[in-house]
Amino acid sequence: MLSSMLSFSSHSSFLSCAFLRRSPSQGSSARQGSTLVSMKRRDKDFPFLPPAHRALTLDLFSAIDDRLDSVLLPSTVPSDVLRFQNPQGTAHGSVEIRSGSPTSLLDLVLQSWLHCKLPGGSGEINITTLFGFLNSTSHAPHLLVELIQGGPSSLVLVIDLLPRKDVVLHPDYLDEFYLETNLDGPRQDLERLPQVSPYRSPSLFIRSVLSPTAVAVTINGGKEVDALAFEEVMARHVGEAAKKVISIWIEKCLGAGQRVLEEERDGLERRDGMIKRKAVEIDLVANLPKMFGPEVADRVVAQVQKAFRVV
Amino acid sequence: MLSSMLSFSSHSSFLSCAFLRRSPSQGSSARQGSTLVSMKRRDKDFPFLPPAHRALTLDLFSAIDDRLDSVLLPSTVPSDVLRFQNPQGTAHGSVEIRSGSPTSLLDLVLQSWLHCKLPGGSGEINITTLFGFLNSTSHAPHLLVELIQGGPSSLVLVIDLLPRKDVVLHPDYLDEFYLETNLDGPRQDLERLPQVSPYRSPSLFIRSVLSPTAVAVTINGGKEVDALAFEEVMARHVGEAAKKVISIWIEKCLGAGQRVLEEERDGLERRDGMIKRKAVEIDLVANLPKMFGPEVADRVVAQVQKAFRVV
Repeated sequence: MLSSMLSFSSHSSFLSCAFLRRSPSQGSSARQGSTLVSMKRRDKDFPFLPPAHRALTLDLFSAIDDRLDSVLLPSTVPSDVLRFQNPQGTAHGSVEIRSGSPTSLLDLVLQSWLHCKLPGGSGEINITTLFGFLNSTSHAPHLLVELIQGGPSSLVLVIDLLPRKDVVLHPDYLDEFYLETNLDGPRQDLERLPQVSPYRSPSLFIRSVLSPTAVAVTINGGKEVDALAFEEVMARHVGEAAKKVISIWIEKCLGAGQRVLEEERDGLERRDGMIKRKAVEIDLVANLPKMFGPEVADRVVAQVQKAFRVV
Repeated sequence: MLSSMLSFSSHSSFLSCAFLRRSPSQGSSARQGSTLVSMKRRDKDFPFLPPAHRALTLDLFSAIDDRLDSVLLPSTVPSDVLRFQNPQGTAHGSVEIRSGSPTSLLDLVLQSWLHCKLPGGSGEINITTLFGFLNSTSHAPHLLVELIQGGPSSLVLVIDLLPRKDVVLHPDYLDEFYLETNLDGPRQDLERLPQVSPYRSPSLFIRSVLSPTAVAVTINGGKEVDALAFEEVMARHVGEAAKKVISIWIEKCLGAGQRVLEEERDGLERRDGMIKRKAVEIDLVANLPKMFGPEVADRVVAQVQKAFRVV
């Protein structure tokens, strides 16, 4: 999902991304589990992200932490994946992964961010990713929010609930999760803004994974819109749309009544496995080594593959 | 597929559509089969369509007839479906359906057009539809081309090869039919034009049926572009894109090597059946009665359902 969303990256020398959140007490030694993940996020979190991007990341991650803390286990991601960088110190990233408690419908929540200076001082790229995967006792959609900022007032935004089934064979699935929840509303609201235009991932697989109500847009301040307008779009419109979709996911998809029959589970696991395998392959395996070198990249990829059970 | 594509219709009092091609020798008596379908189309075909729309329809239908005539059986559509109208004479339509020969991979080809005056003299709507369905001895994509013209220089255009499988579970299907054939090229070419902007069907099901490389756009002459520019876009750019996709469909999807194993056929038939059932339900059953009255609508719907085997 991650870097294949990057239209600008497809024209540059790398496509990569990674992630991080810094905990105030986090040291350099490996941390095999943490009770700090539910701490209120603070202003000094995400030190490298640009201000509007950073505020929104703080807001969205906090919304997840606040509402799901009771059904999420502590992170078991070691500190050298919770925070990593390249030898030159020009790329910083983080992946944090928390599993759902055994009685919940949650498989895992992945929260990540990346900051990376482009070669030759030609700018920087900042990426925030939020995945919420359900387990196969539910067929309700997964959550994806992604911000990929390639310039001071230029951003690719993806907000979606990813279908777990072939919706052409199951039109009632569309009715239940997308039509009755009015998930097309946030997309329509955003696409009405003059700074917003539709975005298509260069990866046909990523396009296919998205739902028919996916927000997949480019927000571009351009020449006629000042930084203030961009920050307002981020704070107000993007934040509102993302929080609406997160709320629908938590209330509708994580709620009671979504458990499925035993015989449906194999199909769900096969499809989920493909989404996770392709996400790792398209984004991480292809790109992390270029940014962080093979050693760091291998460590991060291995950790994600382990959590995704796609080793 | 048909009227649910109509963004302007969703704001008007009807959403309907229908179809026709007039054969020079066609009388008013029922014709239970015809050997005239492969005749060269003539200038007096499609008498109600606006000039640029009409020329393009002629071009596309002829391309199909010329290249597929040898594998298509004569039409068995009766003349009162091959040509129909409402009692007031303000709406005219046609559906022509030809089945594939028993040894081919073709299920059927549907060619249709509709012309309909809007109430109160507020304009007219003209729709051309071309469906090419394969049978379940092949898993290659179906063909869809649709032009929905709501004003002298305003048109919704859909050109696509519809996937037959859940492509998330089968990413190799995307590679074979969409990536290696560069099906994203015609979409990119069209979306670069200033008159063209992305279009989203109001039906979430229709959005889901389309492939990740679907052309689904609005062409709008607007105030700054004269009719000549619109006609040039239609003749040159739309025609080129549609003919490229039709060629890929004929060469890649109807070619050798696409036959599938017996055990795959049930799944294909179930999915194809859902696409056909929903197309009839969303477009025809919901809308034809409003335009043509119940008697004509029932006749046309019954004929399409029979050909689609979704009675």
